[in-house]
Amino acid sequence: MRVPFRRVNLTNGEHFDLYDTSGPYTDADAALDLRRGLPPRPGVVSDRGTQLQRARAGEVTAEMAFIAAREGLAPELVRAEVAQGRAVIPANHNHPEAEPMIIGKAFAVKVNANIGNSAVSSSIADEVDKMVWATRWGADTIMDLSTGRDIHLTREWILRNSPVPVGTVPIYQALEKVNGDPVALTWECYRDTVIEQCEQGVDYMTVHAGVLLRYVPLTANRVTGIVSRGGSIMAAWCLAHHQESFLYTHFAELCEILQRYDVTFSLGDGLRPGSIADANDAAQFAELRTLGELTKIAKSHGVQVMIEGPGHVPMHKIVENVRLEEELCDEAPFYTLGPLTTDIAPAYDHITSAIGAAMIAQAGTAMLCYVTPKEHLGLPDRKDVKDGVIAYKIAAHAADLAKGHPRAQERDDALSRARFEFRWHDQFALSLDPDTAREFHDETLPAEPAKTAHFCSMCGPKFCSMRITQDIRDAMAEKSKEFAEHGNQVYLPLA
Amino acid sequence: MRVPFRRVNLTNGEHFDLYDTSGPYTDADAALDLRRGLPPRPGVVSDRGTQLQRARAGEVTAEMAFIAAREGLAPELVRAEVAQGRAVIPANHNHPEAEPMIIGKAFAVKVNANIGNSAVSSSIADEVDKMVWATRWGADTIMDLSTGRDIHLTREWILRNSPVPVGTVPIYQALEKVNGDPVALTWECYRDTVIEQCEQGVDYMTVHAGVLLRYVPLTANRVTGIVSRGGSIMAAWCLAHHQESFLYTHFAELCEILQRYDVTFSLGDGLRPGSIADANDAAQFAELRTLGELTKIAKSHGVQVMIEGPGHVPMHKIVENVRLEEELCDEAPFYTLGPLTTDIAPAYDHITSAIGAAMIAQAGTAMLCYVTPKEHLGLPDRKDVKDGVIAYKIAAHAADLAKGHPRAQERDDALSRARFEFRWHDQFALSLDPDTAREFHDETLPAEPAKTAHFCSMCGPKFCSMRITQDIRDAMAEKSKEFAEHGNQVYLPLA
Repeated sequence: MRVPFRRVNLTNGEHFDLYDTSGPYTDADAALDLRRGLPPRPGVVSDRGTQLQRARAGEVTAEMAFIAAREGLAPELVRAEVAQGRAVIPANHNHPEAEPMIIGKAFAVKVNANIGNSAVSSSIADEVDKMVWATRWGADTIMDLSTGRDIHLTREWILRNSPVPVGTVPIYQALEKVNGDPVALTWECYRDTVIEQCEQGVDYMTVHAGVLLRYVPLTANRVTGIVSRGGSIMAAWCLAHHQESFLYTHFAELCEILQRYDVTFSLGDGLRPGSIADANDAAQFAELRTLGELTKIAKSHGVQVMIEGPGHVPMHKIVENVRLEEELCDEAPFYTLGPLTTDIAPAYDHITSAIGAAMIAQAGTAMLCYVTPKEHLGLPDRKDVKDGVIAYKIAAHAADLAKGHPRAQERDDALSRARFEFRWHDQFALSLDPDTAREFHDETLPAEPAKTAHFCSMCGPKFCSMRITQDIRDAMAEKSKEFAEHGNQVYLPLA
Repeated sequence: MRVPFRRVNLTNGEHFDLYDTSGPYTDADAALDLRRGLPPRPGVVSDRGTQLQRARAGEVTAEMAFIAAREGLAPELVRAEVAQGRAVIPANHNHPEAEPMIIGKAFAVKVNANIGNSAVSSSIADEVDKMVWATRWGADTIMDLSTGRDIHLTREWILRNSPVPVGTVPIYQALEKVNGDPVALTWECYRDTVIEQCEQGVDYMTVHAGVLLRYVPLTANRVTGIVSRGGSIMAAWCLAHHQESFLYTHFAELCEILQRYDVTFSLGDGLRPGSIADANDAAQFAELRTLGELTKIAKSHGVQVMIEGPGHVPMHKIVENVRLEEELCDEAPFYTLGPLTTDIAPAYDHITSAIGAAMIAQAGTAMLCYVTPKEHLGLPDRKDVKDGVIAYKIAAHAADLAKGHPRAQERDDALSRARFEFRWHDQFALSLDPDTAREFHDETLPAEPAKTAHFCSMCGPKFCSMRITQDIRDAMAEKSKEFAEHGNQVYLPLA
């Protein structure tokens, strides 16, 4: 079994291995051909039940062993968390190109990056490039949210080339099939779309089955109504037909389909708040309760489930979301979009939401869906994708530290030691974005000798506290030596 | 009395007034001349005691009345908080150009921007420009941390043109006077520097008087030693002389000087942690205890005091900092640098620290010192200053929302209503950075009609949830009308 890590060779002769999501793309020896796709990982078989079913049966699957090695945790912990439904391994039998990973609060917090074109912007090649780019910076899964033309083909290219699990929202493609009219959607159209995507290898699917007819009026007095695309589509359908949605009434059939491929449910929060004013309201929590019921049904079919969460939530209302989700949804992994902690900073919502994301992950959220600087304003480009991923890797890592993930602080310590010892190259190499760190440093001190200099342009040579601290330590060591030489007395505190 | 606000005229005929820190620079009618400086505010007298002394005497000063109008709170609350030492009004008698503002946990969370040249980089004009630029984006105070040549002149230009209070760290200039050798520093040199800066009009001063000789060995096993410039300078002095620092032994004399001008102490955390590994350690909290003792001495001299805090702290150790500070320092306003919640993202430390800043402000920190993307790497330029200020305005506002500041959510609601109603111009105008929000939107949809279009390029016209929600609301209203027409029955829930 070969498990991916990124090895950083340090200038002091040591090395540090980082969890890595970039697949073969950052391996100089890998032969890549986007038209052929990535090679499948060895030993994948298609008729093997779900990870949940096998975990319950006591089996540590090849995927679980891979994940245990990757996370530095015991295989039995992986199995137990999956068996209890507190973690999921999104791994469609038909997506053998992906490297197994796990989403659950006992493990490192994961980050999802949304990509996908819209009717207004972007091409297939752009989206594949964004996928590779997002995983290079650390996206643990990606969601293809394409809504324009060529949905099937775009997804095919992404899946065949993706080293990470791929999620989708099948209702988007179903809506394209009925020319964009929500009222014309049918269970049969939706079902066929889901099967098509399961066959292609989609690893998890957002299903807004919790939007019930009676919840729609609860959104009437909201500041921002329904902000989930899938939620608004299903609400429109329910209202037009005056019926519960086919996602809800056919949920058991849906479970049977997903079970066959081991596709994981991501039960969508179609009524999530889209503004601070609407956070934690009756509509949101009514839907969450229904997602709890659906979780039990899915699990009874052996299907893995995670639960999607908001959205826009002020800091003091964040923890309540996790508490309720765990209570109502049997501790299924929580997967949240941010949340944004204020509405007043369009163009900086990667930051408004990184704050909320870090806090909600500390409270137990297992995966964070990134928000890019373009949120609310337009479709993200390459730079936005990177900015979003980095902001969310920060939030996820900050939460890992706060939760005491066994390996998290090793990286902080290694980087801080490099910083203190003025090993600039090592500081860059251990950072989330070595390129930008180096570039910022070199703006003012580009020469190679500055890479071992005992200061930077922030304070200049005279005011570098770290250099002065070294002098202090030298002075203390000298004092200590003097004491020893003059009678070998115990070293006394200096005051 | 005229109190500054920025009025945003909305396209629906309403308007919204924003707290504004930019002084006359964003007033189209203001006559500006950097060489003459800003006009003093009317009625400033120099021999008037300190705001603390006058608050204790029951007086609502002109500054307090100004602040009450600015914050939308009762003048008596302002007076009471200042009298108790739970808030400070940094307003040197010799800095009449500044518009009064308050730092205290009962008020809106404030943001400080550090500027100042170093020996390696930047000119006076650059620094004045950064000051104007920082206040334009919302910096409530600025600190001039210059360490290179021309310190006095740089500060003079900044003070005469600054509409916000200006802080300094006098030890930096003192060190320049002794050619950069910490060991050569003396009380007399330091005292004269403080008087020089008081005379110029500096509003608050960082004084690292809590670095005691016996605390220095507590830093010996740290990963990053002493990372405060002032702290490392004083530690080096203490160790070299084997004495307590002159800042500590002459603290009462220092109080007498600051009292004469109503300069506020910002008691520096010279032993703050510079890495996750060093957070909340013995050195940090030993110094905090000493800062508590010094707080009492300063207050007994009628001098206003705030307390500086870290630094680098993982999320689960943040609240403890506020709790201890309030306990040990008699609830003096807390003023923290971030904290950074992880060490692994140089070039993104405005984000690693905005997370910590939001959380520590929610817990009661009154002012946040920004961190720019260049932290640890180099001196911030104009773009870095703006990025740092915006990230910190986000953190401060998120905390205001979480603390229930009476006016905070009005802005979120106004912006979200504009968003929901597709008033794009209003959404931009109400945001923290209208320029960038507009620019991001226009990247894909630059035409003027797109500014009223019911979608953006993120989802395209068919998938815009907000547009569909409007349709849903129309449908619900239509149903309601039908019911009324068919017998005027009570409107029933739809399920």
